[in-house]
Amino acid sequence: MNIGLDMMGGDFAPLEAVKGVKDFVAASQKDIALTLIGDKEQVKLLLDEHTVPKNNLHLVHAEQMIEMHEHPTKALKEKQRSSIAIGFHLLATGKIDAFISAGNTGAMMVGALFSIKAIEGVSRPTIGAYIPRENGSLGLLLDAGINADCKPENLNQFAILGSLFAEHILGVDNPKVGLVNIGEEEGKGNILAQATYPLLKENKLINFVGNIEGRDILMDKSDVMVCEGFTGNVVLKMAESVYDIVQRRGIKDEHFDRFDFEKYGGVPVLGVAKPVIIGHGISHGTAFKNMIAIAQRMIEKDLMKKMQAAFTS
Amino acid sequence: MNIGLDMMGGDFAPLEAVKGVKDFVAASQKDIALTLIGDKEQVKLLLDEHTVPKNNLHLVHAEQMIEMHEHPTKALKEKQRSSIAIGFHLLATGKIDAFISAGNTGAMMVGALFSIKAIEGVSRPTIGAYIPRENGSLGLLLDAGINADCKPENLNQFAILGSLFAEHILGVDNPKVGLVNIGEEEGKGNILAQATYPLLKENKLINFVGNIEGRDILMDKSDVMVCEGFTGNVVLKMAESVYDIVQRRGIKDEHFDRFDFEKYGGVPVLGVAKPVIIGHGISHGTAFKNMIAIAQRMIEKDLMKKMQAAFTS
Repeated sequence: MNIGLDMMGGDFAPLEAVKGVKDFVAASQKDIALTLIGDKEQVKLLLDEHTVPKNNLHLVHAEQMIEMHEHPTKALKEKQRSSIAIGFHLLATGKIDAFISAGNTGAMMVGALFSIKAIEGVSRPTIGAYIPRENGSLGLLLDAGINADCKPENLNQFAILGSLFAEHILGVDNPKVGLVNIGEEEGKGNILAQATYPLLKENKLINFVGNIEGRDILMDKSDVMVCEGFTGNVVLKMAESVYDIVQRRGIKDEHFDRFDFEKYGGVPVLGVAKPVIIGHGISHGTAFKNMIAIAQRMIEKDLMKKMQAAFTS
Repeated sequence: MNIGLDMMGGDFAPLEAVKGVKDFVAASQKDIALTLIGDKEQVKLLLDEHTVPKNNLHLVHAEQMIEMHEHPTKALKEKQRSSIAIGFHLLATGKIDAFISAGNTGAMMVGALFSIKAIEGVSRPTIGAYIPRENGSLGLLLDAGINADCKPENLNQFAILGSLFAEHILGVDNPKVGLVNIGEEEGKGNILAQATYPLLKENKLINFVGNIEGRDILMDKSDVMVCEGFTGNVVLKMAESVYDIVQRRGIKDEHFDRFDFEKYGGVPVLGVAKPVIIGHGISHGTAFKNMIAIAQRMIEKDLMKKMQAAFTS
């Protein structure tokens, strides 16, 4: 197993990426190779400084770097020697088994969609977001903002992808799928939700539990919550802001501490043929460590094969 | 001025409605007539029991009552002697100047749209929701769930209606209007948001400040927040659930106490030709008192005339 990591992505790269690598290596029980892509000199210096054991690390030099504000398609095309472009090249050619970056989200999406491509049968890959629940578990809300306009069939596919992720990566047995809606009964909602409900109901690959409302999103009524990326993104950012308010008001609470979404690191792009994880720009060491661990689990559980199987059945 | 109140609407009616009337009368500086519609005997008994001064109260008997679960159109048609049907009849014929109920929301909407009708030029009346902000003020989010699917022009009209309400009822000077979206820059968002932005930008009747994201909804970046009723309802119910979580976790905080949406009572249906206020089913005394006060303010400020003027200019 060889996991590729963009050392230059994120607001605090490469320092925080190095810290994440150190923590991962220290905690890992297995011999997992990490391919660290970025400014080789700079990364090497930091690895030495932080005394990271280098026996399982492969450094790949990238002369260029895609900045946060750059136009995704243009940057990827023009900066072939950037850490993101190299990462996708290594992933596409099988040199690495997963690729992680906290860099330019758009460039990561373009790379995932065009150099890795969607799983056959998946019309729109998606990104989810973790939602902390009071019982200590994590829910998965998707789409988190990549697909602002969706068709019912897209939401139905998100439900399948999200269920497989929840089951195999989050460890939820037979995950409950809820349709984010504005009423509990079938027939409620906007045109999209009304048309999506019957698809989910008849979908034998998922455990559909019906509509969930805004008040259920932070609860554990369902493990996988499906909606288009507009509502999903608004909801997610509002949940993030609750954490900020709680902090500003000096409230100390274990549950609300888990609203610090940054520490989760990032969620994979679901529906592309190989493991790609996009991190939050403000990722710190823990976030990087968590992303590497998720990539490891995705490879170990052979999640891609399970997703492919779901879409050919 | 004569304000009509459905005494039978809401989970705790008529008792809590009576308490609200008592509190309103006790606090009011002016001679405001209240028309109380419901089971006359029962209401009279409660008024006596709570020693409410009756000089400005008019009791109108209603033999029937529309239950919470009843089909709105059917119930309104068949129960002509229900408190809601009588209330709309009195409002339509000018016997009362405003009508308030915490009863069946659907029946209230049907009554507002069909016996009172929309202001000329308004294609879709709307309902907003108050959003508490850290600075102590209230924002207005609309649509809160009545119009699940919207056209750009609907959102543009919500912005006008919301601005007038925020200015004259909430007392916000030159209220800032924000478009709920999933990115800050113009051009971001789903098809609806993309098409709505230029309309808001060119609308001279409002003070448009651009897109706001999920993280801005609980802040004071804008006073009037516009979106379709699907996103609005999900966001509102999620905010309500934050209050529940805070309570369950035993957190005492002045700001989060203001997330108890129940106490605000209800928001008027905006865009219909006369003041109609729909309360939360679980309304208590304070909520009823607040709704009467809002109706009073709407009449005093002649909000309907201001709205009509906006749509004929």
